[in-house]
This record gives sequence, structure tokens and C-alpha cells, in this order.
Amino acid sequence: MNEFMQAAIEEAEKGLAEGGIPIGSVIVHRGRIIGRGHNRRVQQGSAVLHGEMDAFENAGRQPASVYAESILYTTLSPCPMCSGAILLYGIPKVVIGENRTFMGEELLLRGRGVEVEVLQEARCVEMMRGFIAESPELWNEDIGET
Amino acid sequence: MNEFMQAAIEEAEKGLAEGGIPIGSVIVHRGRIIGRGHNRRVQQGSAVLHGEMDAFENAGRQPASVYAESILYTTLSPCPMCSGAILLYGIPKVVIGENRTFMGEELLLRGRGVEVEVLQEARCVEMMRGFIAESPELWNEDIGET
Repeated sequence: MNEFMQAAIEEAEKGLAEGGIPIGSVIVHRGRIIGRGHNRRVQQGSAVLHGEMDAFENAGRQPASVYAESILYTTLSPCPMCSGAILLYGIPKVVIGENRTFMGEELLLRGRGVEVEVLQEARCVEMMRGFIAESPELWNEDIGET
Repeated sequence: MNEFMQAAIEEAEKGLAEGGIPIGSVIVHRGRIIGRGHNRRVQQGSAVLHGEMDAFENAGRQPASVYAESILYTTLSPCPMCSGAILLYGIPKVVIGENRTFMGEELLLRGRGVEVEVLQEARCVEMMRGFIAESPELWNEDIGET
């Protein structure tokens, strides 16, 4: 498997082990991980720290020139908030673990010129299917659904 | 002035007094402020806590039914990330202090059915003009520009 998707999956697994929502992400600048994160809704009571947002936060303040040469890896198709962050910072490429359990704003991203690659990794699908089956209310809260 | 825009401006002024970026926001549910925030880039080294995001975070975990009856007030036209958060959580209405110094994703919001009202408050324009003139590099960092 791609080593950076593997790192994003490890983040998702950490989240799962903490009793959280199993979505992870890493931001890679010129072949080096500069930020990694996972969903913190349960662990920190956070409404904004989705996996991708947590990776942005942990990457810290960066100039536009760094984001312009970075690739974001995420285990799940990015929601509107995370896609918006990708657009804000001009991330040129996003690699997605899977979009079978949730279809995010891939069309918006592509329409704005972001390269989007979907790997459909079995481990990503499996984690999300298990989580959604066990905690449907928590999942709905995370994606703003009733 | 609208009392909730006044509260958002007070948040922006707090940020300015802390040496930060003067953008503030409040989220109002059925006439009561449930979250208030201001940009935390300087104060917390945060890449994700724009004013609106800070207000979402401070509102805490909320069910979709609460967001569906909330109005978000922000002193500045919301960037892609904050607009994405508004879409994720299904906020039906956004009241914007001004869009003269920065035009955010108002078209995207309107296109997705969000009601957008722009007040063009002089105090909001004045704060942003002063800040951008004094700290252009910090401002560019906040909006992902070079």
C-alpha cells in the first residue's frame, strides 16, 4: 500500500482505539509528512477537528508556498468543511482512501482544479462500515445529518 | 446596529487587542448566542481557527437540528473553509459584516440554498483595512495567498 495512505490509516486506527471516529489524514510536503491527524469529535468534544482539519492544525502555520507543493491523504472522501480547507490553502492533490461509505465534495474539488485520486482501500471501507453500524448517531452528528 | 453583528465585532476587537487577525463570529440559535469566536492564528498558532471555525468549536458538539435553526454572523465574508463548515452543518442563514476587503464563497453558499445577507458595516471594513495595511504577510497567510 502507498506509505502515506498507510500513515493516514494508522491515524484512523488510533482514533478508533481512543473510542473515536476512525478517519485519519496526513499532509505530505515534498515526500515528507508535515502534519498528521485524526477525527477528535469524541476525544476533544471538537466540532471542527475532522481528520483532515486535525492534520492541517498539526502541520501548523505554513506559507502558501508549502501548501502549493503538498498532497493531502485522507482515509475518507472529504466533507464540505475539509474540502473548503483544501481549497483555502490551495492543496493541489488529494488522495482518498474510499468514497463508498461517504461521498464528499470531490466534484467541487475537481471543478476547482484539484487532482483527486480514490484508492478504494478495503481497510478504510471496513473501518467506516463497522463504525457506522455501531454508532450511527455519532456518525450523523459528524456529518451534520439528522 | 444588529446586536449579533455587534457581538461578532466585539469578538473581532478582542482578537485585534490580542495582536491577532480582527475577524469575529457568533452562532445564534433561536435568538440566543450558542458559540462565539475570533481568529486564533496568532494567539494559538492555529491554521484552522478562523473566526467562524472558532465559533463552531466554542458552540461545541451540536445535533443537526440545532444547526438547522441557527444563524451565523461573521464580520467578514467567509473563506472556503468556513463556508464549507456552514454547508457541512446545514446553517440556513449567514449574516456578513462586509465583503469589500475580501470576497469569500458567497456564491457557493447561495448556490447551495444558504441565505446570505451582507451588511457592509463601516467598523468591519475599517478594522480589516487597517489590519491588512499593517500586516499584509499575516493576512496572506490566513487566506492561503503568496
